[in-house]
Amino acid sequence: MPFPDLIQPELGAYNSAVETPGDFSAFWASTIAEARAIGGTVSMEPVASSLKAVEVFDVTFPGFGGHPVKAWLMLPTQRSGRLPLVVQFQGYGGGRGFPHEQLHWTASGYAYLRMDTRGQGSGWSTGTTADPVGSTASLPGVMTKGILDRHDYYYRRLFTDGVRAIDAMVAQDFVDASRIAVCGGSQGGGITLAVAGIDERVAAAMPDVPFLSDFPRAVAKAQRDPYGELVRFMAQHRDKKSQVFETLRYFDGVCFARQAKAPALFSVALMDDICPASTVYGAYNAYGGSDKTIHEYEFNNHEGGGPFQEREQMKWLGQRFGV
Amino acid sequence: MPFPDLIQPELGAYNSAVETPGDFSAFWASTIAEARAIGGTVSMEPVASSLKAVEVFDVTFPGFGGHPVKAWLMLPTQRSGRLPLVVQFQGYGGGRGFPHEQLHWTASGYAYLRMDTRGQGSGWSTGTTADPVGSTASLPGVMTKGILDRHDYYYRRLFTDGVRAIDAMVAQDFVDASRIAVCGGSQGGGITLAVAGIDERVAAAMPDVPFLSDFPRAVAKAQRDPYGELVRFMAQHRDKKSQVFETLRYFDGVCFARQAKAPALFSVALMDDICPASTVYGAYNAYGGSDKTIHEYEFNNHEGGGPFQEREQMKWLGQRFGV
Amino acid sequence: MPFPDLIQPELGAYNSAVETPGDFSAFWASTIAEARAIGGTVSMEPVASSLKAVEVFDVTFPGFGGHPVKAWLMLPTQRSGRLPLVVQFQGYGGGRGFPHEQLHWTASGYAYLRMDTRGQGSGWSTGTTADPVGSTASLPGVMTKGILDRHDYYYRRLFTDGVRAIDAMVAQDFVDASRIAVCGGSQGGGITLAVAGIDERVAAAMPDVPFLSDFPRAVAKAQRDPYGELVRFMAQHRDKKSQVFETLRYFDGVCFARQAKAPALFSVALMDDICPASTVYGAYNAYGGSDKTIHEYEFNNHEGGGPFQEREQMKWLGQRFGV
Amino acid sequence: MPFPDLIQPELGAYNSAVETPGDFSAFWASTIAEARAIGGTVSMEPVASSLKAVEVFDVTFPGFGGHPVKAWLMLPTQRSGRLPLVVQFQGYGGGRGFPHEQLHWTASGYAYLRMDTRGQGSGWSTGTTADPVGSTASLPGVMTKGILDRHDYYYRRLFTDGVRAIDAMVAQDFVDASRIAVCGGSQGGGITLAVAGIDERVAAAMPDVPFLSDFPRAVAKAQRDPYGELVRFMAQHRDKKSQVFETLRYFDGVCFARQAKAPALFSVALMDDICPASTVYGAYNAYGGSDKTIHEYEFNNHEGGGPFQEREQMKWLGQRFGV
Amino acid sequence: MPFPDLIQPELGAYNSAVETPGDFSAFWASTIAEARAIGGTVSMEPVASSLKAVEVFDVTFPGFGGHPVKAWLMLPTQRSGRLPLVVQFQGYGGGRGFPHEQLHWTASGYAYLRMDTRGQGSGWSTGTTADPVGSTASLPGVMTKGILDRHDYYYRRLFTDGVRAIDAMVAQDFVDASRIAVCGGSQGGGITLAVAGIDERVAAAMPDVPFLSDFPRAVAKAQRDPYGELVRFMAQHRDKKSQVFETLRYFDGVCFARQAKAPALFSVALMDDICPASTVYGAYNAYGGSDKTIHEYEFNNHEGGGPFQEREQMKWLGQRFGV
Amino acid sequence: MPFPDLIQPELGAYNSAVETPGDFSAFWASTIAEARAIGGTVSMEPVASSLKAVEVFDVTFPGFGGHPVKAWLMLPTQRSGRLPLVVQFQGYGGGRGFPHEQLHWTASGYAYLRMDTRGQGSGWSTGTTADPVGSTASLPGVMTKGILDRHDYYYRRLFTDGVRAIDAMVAQDFVDASRIAVCGGSQGGGITLAVAGIDERVAAAMPDVPFLSDFPRAVAKAQRDPYGELVRFMAQHRDKKSQVFETLRYFDGVCFARQAKAPALFSVALMDDICPASTVYGAYNAYGGSDKTIHEYEFNNHEGGGPFQEREQMKWLGQRFGV
Repeated sequence: MPFPDLIQPELGAYNSAVETPGDFSAFWASTIAEARAIGGTVSMEPVASSLKAVEVFDVTFPGFGGHPVKAWLMLPTQRSGRLPLVVQFQGYGGGRGFPHEQLHWTASGYAYLRMDTRGQGSGWSTGTTADPVGSTASLPGVMTKGILDRHDYYYRRLFTDGVRAIDAMVAQDFVDASRIAVCGGSQGGGITLAVAGIDERVAAAMPDVPFLSDFPRAVAKAQRDPYGELVRFMAQHRDKKSQVFETLRYFDGVCFARQAKAPALFSVALMDDICPASTVYGAYNAYGGSDKTIHEYEFNNHEGGGPFQEREQMKWLGQRFGV
Repeated sequence: MPFPDLIQPELGAYNSAVETPGDFSAFWASTIAEARAIGGTVSMEPVASSLKAVEVFDVTFPGFGGHPVKAWLMLPTQRSGRLPLVVQFQGYGGGRGFPHEQLHWTASGYAYLRMDTRGQGSGWSTGTTADPVGSTASLPGVMTKGILDRHDYYYRRLFTDGVRAIDAMVAQDFVDASRIAVCGGSQGGGITLAVAGIDERVAAAMPDVPFLSDFPRAVAKAQRDPYGELVRFMAQHRDKKSQVFETLRYFDGVCFARQAKAPALFSVALMDDICPASTVYGAYNAYGGSDKTIHEYEFNNHEGGGPFQEREQMKWLGQRFGV
Repeated sequence: MPFPDLIQPELGAYNSAVETPGDFSAFWASTIAEARAIGGTVSMEPVASSLKAVEVFDVTFPGFGGHPVKAWLMLPTQRSGRLPLVVQFQGYGGGRGFPHEQLHWTASGYAYLRMDTRGQGSGWSTGTTADPVGSTASLPGVMTKGILDRHDYYYRRLFTDGVRAIDAMVAQDFVDASRIAVCGGSQGGGITLAVAGIDERVAAAMPDVPFLSDFPRAVAKAQRDPYGELVRFMAQHRDKKSQVFETLRYFDGVCFARQAKAPALFSVALMDDICPASTVYGAYNAYGGSDKTIHEYEFNNHEGGGPFQEREQMKWLGQRFGV
Repeated sequence: MPFPDLIQPELGAYNSAVETPGDFSAFWASTIAEARAIGGTVSMEPVASSLKAVEVFDVTFPGFGGHPVKAWLMLPTQRSGRLPLVVQFQGYGGGRGFPHEQLHWTASGYAYLRMDTRGQGSGWSTGTTADPVGSTASLPGVMTKGILDRHDYYYRRLFTDGVRAIDAMVAQDFVDASRIAVCGGSQGGGITLAVAGIDERVAAAMPDVPFLSDFPRAVAKAQRDPYGELVRFMAQHRDKKSQVFETLRYFDGVCFARQAKAPALFSVALMDDICPASTVYGAYNAYGGSDKTIHEYEFNNHEGGGPFQEREQMKWLGQRFGV
Repeated sequence: MPFPDLIQPELGAYNSAVETPGDFSAFWASTIAEARAIGGTVSMEPVASSLKAVEVFDVTFPGFGGHPVKAWLMLPTQRSGRLPLVVQFQGYGGGRGFPHEQLHWTASGYAYLRMDTRGQGSGWSTGTTADPVGSTASLPGVMTKGILDRHDYYYRRLFTDGVRAIDAMVAQDFVDASRIAVCGGSQGGGITLAVAGIDERVAAAMPDVPFLSDFPRAVAKAQRDPYGELVRFMAQHRDKKSQVFETLRYFDGVCFARQAKAPALFSVALMDDICPASTVYGAYNAYGGSDKTIHEYEFNNHEGGGPFQEREQMKWLGQRFGV
Repeated sequence: MPFPDLIQPELGAYNSAVETPGDFSAFWASTIAEARAIGGTVSMEPVASSLKAVEVFDVTFPGFGGHPVKAWLMLPTQRSGRLPLVVQFQGYGGGRGFPHEQLHWTASGYAYLRMDTRGQGSGWSTGTTADPVGSTASLPGVMTKGILDRHDYYYRRLFTDGVRAIDAMVAQDFVDASRIAVCGGSQGGGITLAVAGIDERVAAAMPDVPFLSDFPRAVAKAQRDPYGELVRFMAQHRDKKSQVFETLRYFDGVCFARQAKAPALFSVALMDDICPASTVYGAYNAYGGSDKTIHEYEFNNHEGGGPFQEREQMKWLGQRFGV
């Protein structure tokens, strides 16, 4: 099966041509400051379940605009002291699902927060967080929402939610604020890069086959959606091409990666036709932290390393967080 | 090629089982009243173009929530007195496009208003009307926006825009308020039914292969999107089925048809796998007006009658409006 | 999206026409007896992992022909006394994967055995059990292996493995032999029915969207593989049709269901084009146990109830096993 | 895999509703008379080949309009006296190919004529016969050539070629004129029916999965081309539906079958989505000869019985022709 | 989405390797002379319609071989003096359709002739012109008609029709013979290049995403039909490759472009997988006229610039023709 | 249509990077010796058929492990003395079929043996040879059977069968042992290379579009199965990549070609997306015999030269074997 993008050794040598906007940091600093200024309260409701080994909480925290964002918090029933925290973000179309769907972080002794995705949560797992105003969770198709103005762009809201999730957890008495990790696959990997690039409290980042990275190359190499949403938008709005790419620079994983400092464990799949391998390397090679590693899965498409990579993550994070 | 739905004679005898909610009329009356109460002003900017035979205006009128909705108004350069008006709504994903893309109504002596579609206008023609807040025009995927509460549902906003378009035109000195027609294909046909069912000023309705009609049957018969968006939503939100269908009753073309009184010219395609033929007949047989006609296109899919039906419309409307 | 098979109320009333062969019970009794006569030993090697809440063992037990079959056994680290046991079988092409991939039974307090699938384990999860002689795990394509003689048919070996898995666990000191449940989806559901029909030690059966049931109808209704393997085989071997169906009677979920007595929780998906809904009802309506329930997922394809059904299972099994 | 059409017992009881036009026989009698009146000469050039067991001739005979039509004639090198003759027609898009591609009739002791297909011969085997004027062999797409007037329709020319092929052979000294068989699959089966219906010299007919039969039903049941060409034509020419079906009545295998008298061996495939099973039974049940047999292939698509049916044909024809 | 062909800067620098045959001009000069020698008369029947702003005429003129070719002529009702003329040719499979389907040229003050396409007119719009002998309009599939001899090739007839359309209009009293433009998309763009290369009366040419250009490269780069018809023909006729390409040199847009002198406005789409971008640049870079411009649509497939390009054309032609 | 691999001149210059294992010859020598040591008897049963020109025998000979392997032997009825022998192997999924399916070698005066394919024979032609133990003929899916150990790999058994077929024929009194040819297409071409590389009795080899050659490149260039089976296996078994390729080196057509000495006639198709052209050239350029020729089919996919190549083979082999 043909590789849809570069292979080694060209792949490893690839550097993205995306330029970080001069006001990139300022844009995000003011965005986060604005969200924090609105404030709001965090609620954590215990949830009854059959999962004896896990305590489950239904969390609502204030995200962008103070909008209520949902998450599941899961803590090992057997625990003592402050725990390291893993925050996970979801892939395109997905929501936080049910608590029992992913238990390996909690079973390994971590506090685990699974953040919902505003206005998605209907494509492959369920969610209940709205992207206001006037919308409950709906099917995806968010790549071009507000794309003609970076202040209106959907991902400004979603990335801010990611930082605000850490805000909501960092002060809890069961969390060790010095051991906070973020992770996620595909769109979740894109959010991981964004939060790691914005928020210095992140102590480890584990993006898998990250989406939302190196947009100009991605739209030309991806063979399937969601990048295709951008192509179809520009195919109709033939006169908006430069405006679209100008907005996207403020949301590009490559730009976030340049600002990030935390240890990072990436993964990439060489037959990935959704998030092309070079766009992942574009972020990886730009990544600012010195402790960085990437695992390659040569014959995998967008499913990437799957449970093989999860095993690597448990080992890698355990070493860094002393678990 | 197999027919995806009923054929004659069963087709013509089909009656939809959808029940009109008891507060259907009240819901829409209060919705329209609420929009009108917000008010707003109509602007009509002349547009320079090479189209000597047509005067073009860039119209902005207040729709649902007072949100600015765009439209093209086109008037024959050669005209005298008040003109009959044709208001056209767009299919799923489409916007108002460019003025020169459809000229046959103006060339036939009508005032012609081509309404934009909020939050769409990127799929097959361009648009610029946002579905606030925080969204410029984007790719489609609106079938499930706000679907868990009828007050939040996307089509509550879009259908209201259709009525407000007539509000914007009816008082203009070039319009003969007794000769207002609405038309459109697919989603445009669905809006046509809604506006004809809500607004008694409509004097003629011409829905082609209308979408958004007889939802319970449509989701079981349609083989392609957009009805599939509903199916995929319910496939994930397995516990929200009755809530979804309860909302949809307030937006069903069958219920609007029962309330409509204006003369109507429908079209239906028997190989239509997007808007199944029986769902069109569900609306047609329920249609309240006594002067109603339907043209069948046996071997057509969703393209329906195309230019053949346009010819029929020009003839049929000319007879009713004395043009 | 059209339903690929019967819907309600016809669906619930469907009874399979498959006739149980006169020597069905004898065939399986001698098959199991033969396997037990060959004997072999069970090994359970502790596996180091980061999953503190779970003890993991790499199990090898003697299956059909005494062939070594692999499984993961997982026990809650916090436990006391004999535990109820859940044995899970895999879908077509899948193997036992990694221990951390499914933890909710163990987190709920059960001993959990995840059996590998001989000669599969390469399609969507990994496995390492060979279907001798001369084969390590390979890609699927097993539906017609040995189909011309019921003694040679692949599923004779696989179903026997399922019974032998219980043999391997029942005498362990951490297992409560009166509380053994079997479960699985698709092919795993087919094995569940077979084991529940053969082995009276089974105290609860939870087949999801079961495969391998009501073959004559399944080959005519399924729109996708694996049932299509049978069709393609008979399309080439045009003269072997009756021989094929004669073999399949000995492996039909309907026949096993008639013999089964344990409480059962089924699930079925009405848009399932791999395991048609009527073939599931064929087994459900034939099921011999009086405590039986089925959950319908109207708008789902073969993914069925997914995590919704898992929640139902945890509740249902907890009630029956007092967990 | 779902059956695309009727199955037993409904299938066997199906009778086509196509009505034979009153002037059907007269139309074909005058068509053949007209072609014969134009006359022309038959040439038979010996061809050198490595096939020692077969003598090969490159035949050119006058078809419709006196146009030169090509064929391969193959005779067993070891022969004596007058031989029974098998004339074979080709499926859609195919031509006469190379002599060595099909040898089993000659190896069994028959004279064998493989007729080229005017204006086709480029889709799956090669041909060199033009459909004048101005065309050498080209890719297919002939279903709607001249369809608005039965005198212009492509198949008027092709069916006439089939009769003229017999004219060309019947007087040769190596042919036993009392033992002439015609055969072919798909389009070749359609020509077989036509020639058997027109020409009383035919002593045996062997149509396999015949195309061009029961058109009104065929366009509604076939899921793939070539019947789809008719659908697409009528989808554009929305006003020409009745004209199209009026023409097709003169070329319908059902009408030819009613006139045919020779012993016949049919085959039909129940998963055939190109030539639906009921349209084959429409011809078979209408077939006028009393010595008729049909073989069903339940799990086959349009490939039908393939070599299994060829074996049946060799046996069946050998019995009737004393070979 | 991957670009199916060269992108900038390689794209703009591409020059076709097709060599113009030595007798190219002579071949076309004699072809046109021969058609003119046959002569024939032009008829223009007024057509009643509801289009008050437009006068419509049903035109029949003698094309290649004197065969009757249809066209719609549309004139602005409000007009004075001789008008500039736009002649438009259709894309593959299309015919002249209905008069009301395209009105923007007439609305802008041009005489507008929409030429039918012999033997097509059934794929996406309707036509009624036959490609004699014995064929009314039929579905497409013309790429290989007569391809083994350049005198027989289908496009010899169609290109000649294009020149003869100008012959038919140039002497009319409403036409300004010094302001004749030709245009069309895809196949219509190919005809545009041919007519501009043959006929010096052409004063402006506007080919959009032209088809039939740089054949050797096109068959290797196009991913969809119609170029694939050539590939499939050569895949069967494995020994006719050089003969095919020899014929095609006489019909290659690159060769016509080298001879053309009129001002030209091209368009090209970089994601076009039907008419690859390099084959358009092959013609554009070879184009002989010095006043030439090309618009690129980077993210469009074969729909190209659509209404955006039409706006450009109205502006560009208005400047050159003083409209 | 884009070429899926290299074209000329790069294609002809391609050399495979596959390295022959040091113990390659030893591995195969011991494999064949082992099979011969097991022994077994050859049976040849005369088969009655209508094919007067051919004598047919149903052959069973001992293959790998002494397992019974089936074949058809066909001899010209008219013959004298010892005949040259053509042994043909089948493509993926195919079996020996029926005797009458391929007659041109026998009609040309050769003894012809058509070997069955163990454990296949259900995909496109029928077979009856099992791949023991416990399997009758089944659908394909053999590419990864036993792939983790070269002694277990499926193709070790199949290639050995090919050599043992010659063992079975070489001593028969109708065979001229100095004129033995092997041939086959796709998988049959792969077996041809293997047998020609192992067995010095082979006097001519005719591999068409051979499969199983240059595996590392093939898995990266092939767009369709069966090479994709390897990719999917490695996509799941992410840690077994080097083990897989290590096994495959012992079965690579390139390595066999390096050892082969007999005159050879290859064919290759440049649009082949199953067996990429470069992998065929990888074997061809490595081929050890000095009398070697290759025919290129530029516009063909995997069907390759078809009957055109068969004509070339009859001519080429006739020259070498004096037939």
